[in-house]
Amino acid sequence: MFAYEKLAADIGALIARGTLRPGDRIPSVRRMSTTRGVSIPTVLQAYRLLEARRLIGARPQSGFYVLPPQSRAALTRHEPAIAVPEPNAIATGDLIMRVLEMVANPALVPLGTALPAEELLPTRALGRALRGVTRPRPGESPTLVTPSGAESLRREIARRALDAGDAITPDDVVVTCGCAEALSLCLRALTEPGDTVAVEAPAYFGTLQAIEVLGLRALEIPVDPETGLSVEAFADALGRRKVAALVVTPNVHNPLGCVMPDERKRKLVALLAKHRVPAIEDDTYGELAFGDARPRSLRAFDKAGLVITCGSFSKTLAPDYRVGWAIPGAYRDRVLHFKLATTAATAVPPQLAIASYLASGGYEQHLRRLRRLLQGTLERFSFEIAERFPEGTRISRPAGGFLLWVQLPDGVDTVALQRRAVSRGLSVAPGPAFSASGAFPNYLRINAGHPWSARTRDALDLLADMVARASHVRRK
Amino acid sequence: MFAYEKLAADIGALIARGTLRPGDRIPSVRRMSTTRGVSIPTVLQAYRLLEARRLIGARPQSGFYVLPPQSRAALTRHEPAIAVPEPNAIATGDLIMRVLEMVANPALVPLGTALPAEELLPTRALGRALRGVTRPRPGESPTLVTPSGAESLRREIARRALDAGDAITPDDVVVTCGCAEALSLCLRALTEPGDTVAVEAPAYFGTLQAIEVLGLRALEIPVDPETGLSVEAFADALGRRKVAALVVTPNVHNPLGCVMPDERKRKLVALLAKHRVPAIEDDTYGELAFGDARPRSLRAFDKAGLVITCGSFSKTLAPDYRVGWAIPGAYRDRVLHFKLATTAATAVPPQLAIASYLASGGYEQHLRRLRRLLQGTLERFSFEIAERFPEGTRISRPAGGFLLWVQLPDGVDTVALQRRAVSRGLSVAPGPAFSASGAFPNYLRINAGHPWSARTRDALDLLADMVARASHVRRK
Repeated sequence: MFAYEKLAADIGALIARGTLRPGDRIPSVRRMSTTRGVSIPTVLQAYRLLEARRLIGARPQSGFYVLPPQSRAALTRHEPAIAVPEPNAIATGDLIMRVLEMVANPALVPLGTALPAEELLPTRALGRALRGVTRPRPGESPTLVTPSGAESLRREIARRALDAGDAITPDDVVVTCGCAEALSLCLRALTEPGDTVAVEAPAYFGTLQAIEVLGLRALEIPVDPETGLSVEAFADALGRRKVAALVVTPNVHNPLGCVMPDERKRKLVALLAKHRVPAIEDDTYGELAFGDARPRSLRAFDKAGLVITCGSFSKTLAPDYRVGWAIPGAYRDRVLHFKLATTAATAVPPQLAIASYLASGGYEQHLRRLRRLLQGTLERFSFEIAERFPEGTRISRPAGGFLLWVQLPDGVDTVALQRRAVSRGLSVAPGPAFSASGAFPNYLRINAGHPWSARTRDALDLLADMVARASHVRRK
Repeated sequence: MFAYEKLAADIGALIARGTLRPGDRIPSVRRMSTTRGVSIPTVLQAYRLLEARRLIGARPQSGFYVLPPQSRAALTRHEPAIAVPEPNAIATGDLIMRVLEMVANPALVPLGTALPAEELLPTRALGRALRGVTRPRPGESPTLVTPSGAESLRREIARRALDAGDAITPDDVVVTCGCAEALSLCLRALTEPGDTVAVEAPAYFGTLQAIEVLGLRALEIPVDPETGLSVEAFADALGRRKVAALVVTPNVHNPLGCVMPDERKRKLVALLAKHRVPAIEDDTYGELAFGDARPRSLRAFDKAGLVITCGSFSKTLAPDYRVGWAIPGAYRDRVLHFKLATTAATAVPPQLAIASYLASGGYEQHLRRLRRLLQGTLERFSFEIAERFPEGTRISRPAGGFLLWVQLPDGVDTVALQRRAVSRGLSVAPGPAFSASGAFPNYLRINAGHPWSARTRDALDLLADMVARASHVRRK
C-alpha cells in the first residue's frame, strides 16, 4: 500500500465511523502534511482518491469537505429490458417544447438549460476572430455560400476528428446550423416517415423532438449510468424488430454524462454491422470528457461505413454562433440533399470566425481549462445538491460535460415541479422530457456549468425547498 | 399629346421604318435637346417611354441604342390550364440538385445563380455592423439564443412589413436560416406528407426541392408573365381537388420577375378564404420591385389569417449571413415547433449585424440605389441577349429583381445545354428545374444582377454560341 492509499484509508475510516461527518472540513493539505509527516503530493493524491470515491469534495477557495452519503449513492441502474417495449410515437412533445422554450427566457435561472456559463467561454477571442473575418482580404470571396460549409472550417473539423481516432478529409464534413440541424438532416437521410429509430433512455430531448416532427417512432434502449447504451438490450431489440437507425451518445451522454468504454463501442459497431443498421453518433459533448485523452468516437471503430458523427461548437465555444457539423460518410449526398432543401447553407461569418479561432491554436488550451473548471463546478453542484436535497436523492457521476442527472425519491413528480419552478423564475429540465414514453418521472437534469455564486446558491436553495415539499420530506 | 410623347412617337417611327436599326446609337440627350429645341427633361422622358416599350435600351456610360425586335417580343403566355393536371411528385429533384450545386462552384461564371454581384451589396457597411456587435456592451447577453430570433431584428422586420401594408409586431416574426428555412418550416407547419401543394409554373426550384423532400405532391398552376399566378386556374384546381396549401410569389416572381397587381392579390386572398386554404407567400424579392412604392404583400390583403409571408436579406444585403424570416400569424407555434426540432435557432451575430445596419437608416437609400443599378443591368443583359441569341428568342420583362427568363426557340434542350455550359465553366439554370413536371424545356433563367464586364460579355458570347448550335440556327 502506498502512503497516499494508507492516508486515504485512514480518513475513510474516520468518515465511516462518524468522527468526520458530512459537511465537516478536512484539514488543509499543508496541515495534514505536517501532522502526518508525509509530503504534500502524497496528501494531494490521497484527497484525490477520496474525491473519486465521493467521500470528500472540494469547494473552490475553501478546501475539502466530507460529502453527505447520498452523493455517494449511484443512480439506480435500469435493467436492460428483456421484453423490448413497443416503439412509441413521442408522447412528450409538448413537454419538450416547454423545456426548449425556457432557453429563450433570460429571466430564468438556467438550471434547466444545457449551456455552460458565458464567462467560461472564450467570447472575447471569438469576437476578435469574427471582427477579423469581416475585413475582406484580397482574393477572398466573402459571399461564397456553399451547402457543405466553409472549407477552412471543414479542414479544422477534420483535423480534430483525428484526435477522436477518425481519419477523414475536409470533404467528409458537412457544416450545419448547430448539432440540431446535423441530427435532423442525418435522421432524414437514414429514415422514412413511420420508421422505427432506436434511442437511448434517457435521451437528449432535442433528438426525441426531431424524431417526433419527422413522423418516426422511437424504440427506447436503456443506458447504463456508467457504461452507456446497453448493447445487450439493443441486440435483443434488433432480433425482434426492424430498426431503421440508432441515435446514440457514446461520449459524455446527455443527461447522464457517462462515456462508453472502448470495448463497448467495439461491441456496438459489430452489432450494427451484423444487422446493417446505421447509427447517428451525437458527439456534442465529446470534447468535454475529463479523461487524459479525448475518448474515441464510435465512428473511429466503424469499418462498415454505418456510423455518422454529429458535433457542435455550441458547448465549448459559442452557443450563439449555431455552428455544428456532420461526418456523414456514404450518406453525404443525401445529407446535402436535405440540407439544400431546408436551410441551403450555414451562415458564413460564424464559420470563418471559428475556423480562424481554431487555426490560431488556443482551442486545446481553452478546452483543458474549461474541462478543469467544469469538473470543479460539477463537484460543487453535486456537493450542494447532496447537502440540500432530501434523503434518497441520487446524483450521476459525470465523466465529462456539466450536466447532472438527479434521481429524486420515488413519487416526486418533476413535471409538476418544473411548472412551479418556472413560475418562480427557475428553469429545470424534468426527467420525462428525456424519454419518448415519459419515463423518469422523478428525475431532474441540472445544469452545473456555472461557477458557484449567490445566484446559483439561491436557485438551488429554492429548488431544494420545492423538491422537499414535493417529496413530503422535511428539508434537512 | 405632350412634347415628350411627340418626340417618342417620331423616334418610334424612325425605328419602325428602319431608319434607325437595331444596335444603332440614338443621339445623346443633350444633342437631341439642341437639335429638336426641347428641354432635357422632355428628351429624358421620351427616352424612358421608348425604353419602357422596349424600343431602345441604355448601356451604362454609353447612351441609348435601338433594341433588336426579339427583345420586344413578349414571352409566350401559357393558357390557364382548364383541365388541371394530376399533382406530381417532383420529377426534377436530381436536376435541381445539379443547379443548386453550381452555387458552390466559384469557378463558374454565375449566370445560373440568383445572387446579385457582391459589389452591388453594402458588404463593408455590414462588416462594420458585424464588428460592432462583437464587442459586448454592458447589460447585453450575447449568448442569448432564442428560437424566434433576436428581438432587435424582429423589430426591424416588423417595421419594414408595414411598408408592405402589413401591420405586425416583433412577436409575429420568426427569424430563420435564410428564406429556404422559412419556406421549409412553413410547408411543414401547413402540410402532412402525401398532401398536395399548389405551386406556380414556373416556380422557384428551391420551393420544389423543399416540397420533394417533405414527401408532398405539387399541383402546378400557370403564372402569367405580366400578372402572376393565374387565379382562375387556381380557382378551377380548388374546385377539383383537395389542396393543403399554396406557395406563391406575388411580388417579383422568380424566374419571371412579374408583380401581381393589387386587384389580383385581392382576388387571390378571397379565393383562399372561400376554400380555407392557407398560402405561403415568398416575398424574397419584394423589396427589389422597381415601382415607386414597394408592392403590398399578399398578407396585407388577408383578413382570414391564411397567408404566411416569408422573406430574406440574401438578395439585398448579405447572401452569406443566411438570415430570413417568416410571419406565420396563427401558425407561429407550429413553425417554432419545427424550428426547434430542426435548427433550434438562427446564428445570432449575423442577426444583430443586420438589425444594427437596418436601425442605422442606410437601408432605404441602398435599396433605391440597388434597384436603379439592377434595372440597368437587366436592361443591358436583355439587350445583349437579344443581340446574340437566335431569332425566336423571347425575354421576360421583369418588374423587379435581377433575373431574366429567356424563352429559346422550340426544340432547344436547356438541360443538355446546361451540362455543356457547366463543362465550359458557365452556370445557367435550365427551365425544367423550375417545374415539378419538367416543363419549360426550352427556357433558361439568366442572372442579370452583374454589372456588364468583359467577363459577363465573354460568358454571354459563349452561351449564345451554345444556344445557336443547339437551335441549329446560325448565330447572327
